Amino acid sequence: MLINVEDYRKRAEKRLPRSIFDLIDGGAEDEITLKRNRAGFEQISLVPRILANVEGRDQSVTVLGNRLEVPFLLAPTGGAKTCWPNGDVLAATGAHKCGTIFIVSTYTGSSLEEIAERAPGKKWFQLYIWRDRSLVKSLVDRAKAAGYEALVLTLDYPVPALRERDVRHSLVLPPKITFKNALESLLHPLWVKRLMFSPSMSMGTLAIAPGVSGKDLKSTSALIKKNIDPSVTWEDLKWFRSIWSGPLVLKGVLSPEDARQAASLGIDAIVVSNHGGRQLDAAISTIEILPEIVEAVNGKTEILMDGGIRRGSDIIKARALGAKAVLIGRPYLYGLAANGGPGVDAVLNILKTEVDRTMALLGISKLSDLNKSYFRYHK
Amino acid sequence: MLINVEDYRKRAEKRLPRSIFDLIDGGAEDEITLKRNRAGFEQISLVPRILANVEGRDQSVTVLGNRLEVPFLLAPTGGAKTCWPNGDVLAATGAHKCGTIFIVSTYTGSSLEEIAERAPGKKWFQLYIWRDRSLVKSLVDRAKAAGYEALVLTLDYPVPALRERDVRHSLVLPPKITFKNALESLLHPLWVKRLMFSPSMSMGTLAIAPGVSGKDLKSTSALIKKNIDPSVTWEDLKWFRSIWSGPLVLKGVLSPEDARQAASLGIDAIVVSNHGGRQLDAAISTIEILPEIVEAVNGKTEILMDGGIRRGSDIIKARALGAKAVLIGRPYLYGLAANGGPGVDAVLNILKTEVDRTMALLGISKLSDLNKSYFRYHK
Amino acid sequence: MLINVEDYRKRAEKRLPRSIFDLIDGGAEDEITLKRNRAGFEQISLVPRILANVEGRDQSVTVLGNRLEVPFLLAPTGGAKTCWPNGDVLAATGAHKCGTIFIVSTYTGSSLEEIAERAPGKKWFQLYIWRDRSLVKSLVDRAKAAGYEALVLTLDYPVPALRERDVRHSLVLPPKITFKNALESLLHPLWVKRLMFSPSMSMGTLAIAPGVSGKDLKSTSALIKKNIDPSVTWEDLKWFRSIWSGPLVLKGVLSPEDARQAASLGIDAIVVSNHGGRQLDAAISTIEILPEIVEAVNGKTEILMDGGIRRGSDIIKARALGAKAVLIGRPYLYGLAANGGPGVDAVLNILKTEVDRTMALLGISKLSDLNKSYFRYHK
Amino acid sequence: MLINVEDYRKRAEKRLPRSIFDLIDGGAEDEITLKRNRAGFEQISLVPRILANVEGRDQSVTVLGNRLEVPFLLAPTGGAKTCWPNGDVLAATGAHKCGTIFIVSTYTGSSLEEIAERAPGKKWFQLYIWRDRSLVKSLVDRAKAAGYEALVLTLDYPVPALRERDVRHSLVLPPKITFKNALESLLHPLWVKRLMFSPSMSMGTLAIAPGVSGKDLKSTSALIKKNIDPSVTWEDLKWFRSIWSGPLVLKGVLSPEDARQAASLGIDAIVVSNHGGRQLDAAISTIEILPEIVEAVNGKTEILMDGGIRRGSDIIKARALGAKAVLIGRPYLYGLAANGGPGVDAVLNILKTEVDRTMALLGISKLSDLNKSYFRYHK
Repeated sequence: MLINVEDYRKRAEKRLPRSIFDLIDGGAEDEITLKRNRAGFEQISLVPRILANVEGRDQSVTVLGNRLEVPFLLAPTGGAKTCWPNGDVLAATGAHKCGTIFIVSTYTGSSLEEIAERAPGKKWFQLYIWRDRSLVKSLVDRAKAAGYEALVLTLDYPVPALRERDVRHSLVLPPKITFKNALESLLHPLWVKRLMFSPSMSMGTLAIAPGVSGKDLKSTSALIKKNIDPSVTWEDLKWFRSIWSGPLVLKGVLSPEDARQAASLGIDAIVVSNHGGRQLDAAISTIEILPEIVEAVNGKTEILMDGGIRRGSDIIKARALGAKAVLIGRPYLYGLAANGGPGVDAVLNILKTEVDRTMALLGISKLSDLNKSYFRYHK
Repeated sequence: MLINVEDYRKRAEKRLPRSIFDLIDGGAEDEITLKRNRAGFEQISLVPRILANVEGRDQSVTVLGNRLEVPFLLAPTGGAKTCWPNGDVLAATGAHKCGTIFIVSTYTGSSLEEIAERAPGKKWFQLYIWRDRSLVKSLVDRAKAAGYEALVLTLDYPVPALRERDVRHSLVLPPKITFKNALESLLHPLWVKRLMFSPSMSMGTLAIAPGVSGKDLKSTSALIKKNIDPSVTWEDLKWFRSIWSGPLVLKGVLSPEDARQAASLGIDAIVVSNHGGRQLDAAISTIEILPEIVEAVNGKTEILMDGGIRRGSDIIKARALGAKAVLIGRPYLYGLAANGGPGVDAVLNILKTEVDRTMALLGISKLSDLNKSYFRYHK
Repeated sequence: MLINVEDYRKRAEKRLPRSIFDLIDGGAEDEITLKRNRAGFEQISLVPRILANVEGRDQSVTVLGNRLEVPFLLAPTGGAKTCWPNGDVLAATGAHKCGTIFIVSTYTGSSLEEIAERAPGKKWFQLYIWRDRSLVKSLVDRAKAAGYEALVLTLDYPVPALRERDVRHSLVLPPKITFKNALESLLHPLWVKRLMFSPSMSMGTLAIAPGVSGKDLKSTSALIKKNIDPSVTWEDLKWFRSIWSGPLVLKGVLSPEDARQAASLGIDAIVVSNHGGRQLDAAISTIEILPEIVEAVNGKTEILMDGGIRRGSDIIKARALGAKAVLIGRPYLYGLAANGGPGVDAVLNILKTEVDRTMALLGISKLSDLNKSYFRYHK
Repeated sequence: MLINVEDYRKRAEKRLPRSIFDLIDGGAEDEITLKRNRAGFEQISLVPRILANVEGRDQSVTVLGNRLEVPFLLAPTGGAKTCWPNGDVLAATGAHKCGTIFIVSTYTGSSLEEIAERAPGKKWFQLYIWRDRSLVKSLVDRAKAAGYEALVLTLDYPVPALRERDVRHSLVLPPKITFKNALESLLHPLWVKRLMFSPSMSMGTLAIAPGVSGKDLKSTSALIKKNIDPSVTWEDLKWFRSIWSGPLVLKGVLSPEDARQAASLGIDAIVVSNHGGRQLDAAISTIEILPEIVEAVNGKTEILMDGGIRRGSDIIKARALGAKAVLIGRPYLYGLAANGGPGVDAVLNILKTEVDRTMALLGISKLSDLNKSYFRYHK
């Protein structure tokens, strides 16, 4: 019975070959940060109010001027198309139906134009400042042309991390055929069938390259590796600003100093994120550092956060501690892997319903009612 | 061997079909609050005194002017009649024999008049402020007429919670027959026999509806669902006050601000409660928030609490932290399920004996001797 | 291989019928205090010094004017004769060989005169203030006549506790023969053989009753139950002082207020004790409360402690936190059960060697060197 | 797949007879300190910076005037030659290839001259102040003559500890042949073959005794036991200073007072160490006490530390808390046992790569950038 996000996670685990599930579910090195993202939420208890008239509950939020029906956005992830044919388009469509924004990842698998065209609703585009700045510039221009309303710069990826689950699966793009892989595939015939017969299901095409086919994968992958630029600084951000005058979001902020710097530079929003525990293992959990960042920023920029959100009450906690909204990543991928588009819709609906019920039980009608009196850290 | 409450819990687990046991034993969502209610007690250690003359121990307390022989009342629960025929009457009778008060739940299964008539002793009635205020008014009038001495308003139920164990058992009223259900029933023939041959054993009739028979269940259930009113506020409480001048107890208070408000409005007592971990999962545990509430109230109203009480020493801890008495719910249901009326009596007696022994070993003769010197939080 | 106290515990578990092992090893109710006695030590880390010349190490201490070769005494326990024939005499002899004091329990199994006569060395006698004060007086007189140098009043036993392991084994004195008992005995033939063929092995004779034979057990047991006096107060202590002018030790102190009171009354020593987790379950652990008691007493009486000592480093921690010496109980019973007299000797020697090695590795030559700089509480 | 140090640990566990693995892997008594060395690191989270230009990362450090390519040295250990023929020479060679220093242990198995001759690169020599000071003097002279650049005095070994795993394996030198030993050997034929056919693989020859053959082991072992000197003090250190004017390192410092004393005497460096949890069990973990020592020393001597380093992020944490570099011991032994020289190289390379990646992801280009803003203790 699929009644919560964890149910969808378990279903995804059954449906996907182990290596694909681990690709989505895993984190860096010992997965300490992955676990602490969850543990951080468990250290917070909610303190509900009574007799508060919670009849007309409204969980909508305004993020960068956009009214969202729910306090969560769909995080940029690279795995949607490995879970289900057209996974990214389906997820974007689901986000729109739910009244929120889908953030397209550079690594999503479809071209940014394709997603813009095939999925309705507002979308943002996530990208990196690559070495080849003309490539970055062309991406920004294309994103603008395709109607993306905001750009999200991922900044916690100066070098690739070591995701040990992937290494142990020999997970390289395109996938290497090994006996273990083959066996795993035999055990997941539906997934294989969907992959084989769907030209739109893929394991690594990029949003940057319209028309890139499966056989071009190797060169694309090499292109990216060559282009990751560890030398990017706040100066480069100024250059980026000069080529993109729309809303700009910095993703991967964990240090209060960086948050303050971003605010002072007029950045529109930051995403407090440790890349879902997939980059620096031993990095602090996002819910733990969030209050320090809220204090540092002092209202001068909008604060989003991600990492470990699995329940509506987690979203409420993040709000109570000062985030405007959260990003969810793995949950919608679990939904996709379990059941394609309807799976995404179900997962988003579960979270929306949980947020609504948590608001009612907490005694609030709108999210801006939340403040420090609604939670306690426990020992 | 049945020598403590946990023994009765395990026996109940054996005796009841899984779905019925889970209905009683379970909590909301991930059952975090359910577990923390217990964990909160384990963070407190007792510091006993010696040479204190504990010969004439007296565990009686005065709650709303009633002298109780024991520092606990029987909480309103809906499950008594699913555990044993006439479970609610048996529990009420047990409470009286033990020298304490039984709080009749709106969902108990027998009509409030029937319990008043068939079970001796003092009783309180628990109810909700429903949308249909005339129905509420009629309930209040009937409770008054039937001799209920105090009313307990449950306020932590503005909307139903998600109790996932119940959902997974397809637990709906009246029960759906499924293969798994049928198998479970075969494994618990005694329970089925008692249910079948006892017109007074039921799975969901209501205290509000004298004469409601099994076949009316669906409409009754619908009636309730329609009547849950999330819009109730402190204003409605004034109205309620106007139709009931007797002792009034607010149940479900967790916020110090609400406790202070209740005290300032002259409410007779509050029950610090998270509905046994069955409403807002992630809600703070009652023993953790109790000291804040005691401080906020500053003696201006009586404070009861429930949640996680399994040992006499738990009751002593709650008293030492400032509660006047506690409510126990699941323990008497375990007793009922294990052995009917004698099971209730045994469980109440176990708790009474444990309170007495804990007092002796702690070096106190009456509960009012307790203060902060008798406990420490440990690390 | 028997190289530490835990090894002896496991060997005892194998050698004894389950009910006898549990009688020795168990605690009250949920055994929370039993476990916390150990956990308390694990929260403390030692901070060693280097280059401290630890060649001539001396672990002797002076307790009530007696120079002991080791910083531990043998606690009064009732179980020695259930572990091995003449267990109490063997343990007393072992204590003497190790250069320390044996504290004879009222419940030991041999008469106090017999132990005094058969075992060499200094001994103290433990007793209760019973209802029948003439019986108490006669015991004091007999103890004095038999050469006991100090009396230890146990004060944490105003009523019997519920030791659930014992109840589940139907452990009553004299033992009831049940099928499970019989089976257990068949599985431990050596123990049974020792019990059967040794008139001096017993399951409950008392130090108070010289000449009491097995068949008198029931009446003796009843005598004691009748005589436990929960009404004893500090006033009775004055009376006790009037009949015993020698060194007086109060055992079972956990409250700083009581410790201060004892000190102000000129009591010679107190034992910070929760009866090894066998009386008030949920009582604070002794190592946790010790520093508060040390501060309260401010050097005006000698402080001993017991509870959870299993390693030499535990003894060092207790000393560093302010205890003069510790009492060990279960460890020597494990030794007895495993191997009789040589088992006791081995266990005492293990602890002595561990204390010595810990001193060397900690960089101290005598125990009085210890202070707060040698430990840290960790998080 | 061998991608991290723990992988090498598991491979070593498979490759070595149990007794040899435990000799390397084990700690003293209950191995509490062994575990806390690791747990201490897990209480620290890293807080990365973004946009920091991490292109030209440099993890080199200067220790006692030596530029090391990596922030770790190879700790002196006695087990290298029990893992692999010529293990110590191979490890020293690996250290050199990695751009760091190998610290030769007195117990290493080869003579200090042999290692100096056969392995390239900088080496330090570890020794004790033994009773026979002329022996110490001769060692110092030989170390100087052989070109060792610094001496490391181990000071946490005034007496041998009880390493219970070793005792249970009857691990004595030379090894006693037991049935269990024989069986274990049969299960590890490759290890036995390497041992048998390699005159340079040994279980206990010493760096002090050139030309000592297997049959001399007993007398050598006795020589050492006789020579351990628990009476050494700070005065003896002055004497040691008088015979060695080169760089001097004190290993085994855990007390801030001792660290301050060492600094005030002009000691060149200290190693904060609890001997890898192999001496005083219950000793504080090194990462926990490190900040106190850094504060006490106030920059007046160089601080190294060891204990529990298994990841590059551990090294970064130690640096952030104030250590100049760390020592790694077990990791390179795991490498040796798994695969000889290439195993050492692989392990060192893993740590180097992890340090590099952690620096990039943390947003620092050189280790001196680290400060308190880069980490938090979490609850």
